[in-house]
Amino acid sequence: MADRLVAVLGRGVVPADTPILRADDLGVLRGDGIFETMHVRDGQPWLLDEHLARLARSARRLDLALPPAADLAALTREVCASWPATQEGGLRLVCTRGVEGGEARGVSAASPAAASEGVTAGNVTVFATVSPVGEATVRARRDGVAVATASLGYAADARHAAPWLLGGVKSLSYAVNMASQRWAAAHGADDMLWVSADGWALEAPTSSLVWLDGDRLCTVPVERTGILPGCTARHLLDHAAAVGLTADERMIRPGDLAAADGAWLTSSVRGIAPIRALDGTPLPRSAHTAALRAVLGFSAGQPETARR
Amino acid sequence: MADRLVAVLGRGVVPADTPILRADDLGVLRGDGIFETMHVRDGQPWLLDEHLARLARSARRLDLALPPAADLAALTREVCASWPATQEGGLRLVCTRGVEGGEARGVSAASPAAASEGVTAGNVTVFATVSPVGEATVRARRDGVAVATASLGYAADARHAAPWLLGGVKSLSYAVNMASQRWAAAHGADDMLWVSADGWALEAPTSSLVWLDGDRLCTVPVERTGILPGCTARHLLDHAAAVGLTADERMIRPGDLAAADGAWLTSSVRGIAPIRALDGTPLPRSAHTAALRAVLGFSAGQPETARR
Repeated sequence: MADRLVAVLGRGVVPADTPILRADDLGVLRGDGIFETMHVRDGQPWLLDEHLARLARSARRLDLALPPAADLAALTREVCASWPATQEGGLRLVCTRGVEGGEARGVSAASPAAASEGVTAGNVTVFATVSPVGEATVRARRDGVAVATASLGYAADARHAAPWLLGGVKSLSYAVNMASQRWAAAHGADDMLWVSADGWALEAPTSSLVWLDGDRLCTVPVERTGILPGCTARHLLDHAAAVGLTADERMIRPGDLAAADGAWLTSSVRGIAPIRALDGTPLPRSAHTAALRAVLGFSAGQPETARR
Repeated sequence: MADRLVAVLGRGVVPADTPILRADDLGVLRGDGIFETMHVRDGQPWLLDEHLARLARSARRLDLALPPAADLAALTREVCASWPATQEGGLRLVCTRGVEGGEARGVSAASPAAASEGVTAGNVTVFATVSPVGEATVRARRDGVAVATASLGYAADARHAAPWLLGGVKSLSYAVNMASQRWAAAHGADDMLWVSADGWALEAPTSSLVWLDGDRLCTVPVERTGILPGCTARHLLDHAAAVGLTADERMIRPGDLAAADGAWLTSSVRGIAPIRALDGTPLPRSAHTAALRAVLGFSAGQPETARR
């Protein structure tokens, strides 16, 4: 199995243990930056355009000078070129605000395309990594996840009118997301489902909630709630018709998920993981899981492409 | 004026532009780590013990294997030894969860004391920086700050029973704090005062709220609200008697600050900054600012010690 790969914008692939960030990089000092995670299959990041579009939206919300999409796409291609095409992987694309003060350029290089276009890419630090997909991820795809609900503290509409709270932004400030998953693990669950202060299911720390109500494939509306717009959930809903379903966005109480015709957590690398149990109560297996996995190009244990 | 200094635990002082963090350091990938900021005066970090105690509390909340306090104190002494004793500075002490996976040790070295004590310090990355105090900081101390109130989204008691939301933890995930300050700046203010969803004043993104009600020097209670326990605010309240005041913790509505006998934002490097205006309404100058500054060892424009 291949080890982690690292590529830095303007430098290309570097040994994975190379220190690339200065002590005064705002990405580490302040979690001030953005990222995307993609599934690598057949040596390519899947849904690259969708992820780059979301990254650009995050950058606008953070007032961050993102290099041109062409440079970012080239960086992902560059790192994937060194990854075995027969092995699936998880690709992270990271852009920090760069070193504090901004006048020093640090180890982040100006993007080639930006330079040729005469555009300043600012002082950002941009890198990509590809790493193997872990055992727990493969198991969750196959067997589903036991999920614990817990409050996110916000009312469902709290972030809508408060852009400084960064609803919908995939920032590097994931300490609460990680603490939530640790808390779930410490309480015997595989993942957490965040619930709004007023009792609505929102999303999980690193995945979206998708459920089936009859033949309606549903997810939580993004704008109103400030959750992250899930690229994987979006792809599923956009292709619902292909598996005989319609798509809808609506609010749901966690207690109503038990009566749904299926409930899943969706994300780029894990794909679609059935919610096996919610707060200790088993949820029924859905007959639709296999079809939805196929929409995402995953089999139960691995991506379809990896079996060829 | 001296430039930024950087020291890494186990390595000592390195050139400030040295890359020290790998691409897979969870400090940057997830904002997963903790920090403290201290004021450097007379070549020493001020209130070091208090800051180390808060760092240890943050580490426990994040399940993070912090090196022994003696090693951290030694690191701060080491970096301060290279800083001119006549110049004030801002010291940051940072501890990340280290590289993802944890088995690789990366550039973070085991702490010397941990090694000698046979204690594993885990995989954490620890470093300290000292940097010059900026013009804006000195101006805020002298002239005060215009502050805009904005919602933090949480009800005042939302984080008390939800430890995964990391209330009271000084984590590296400060993207919302930074976005809040950018939002304030874009709206003509110097800083933001976060207000709970139920209308109580909480804290500012990088400072505590302190106000005077008659002869009671007040700040917001920490436990109930999940705000950060401010070392500077605590020091002021603990020494209130020295300037003829009593100390209290209570809740206040932002609208009631105009009737207070003084309102300030307190933090380690800026010290005590009078709130000059709140949402565009000027607040009266307090006669007590000079005395409180003296308690913290600052004059209006610079620390007392720097004038010797």
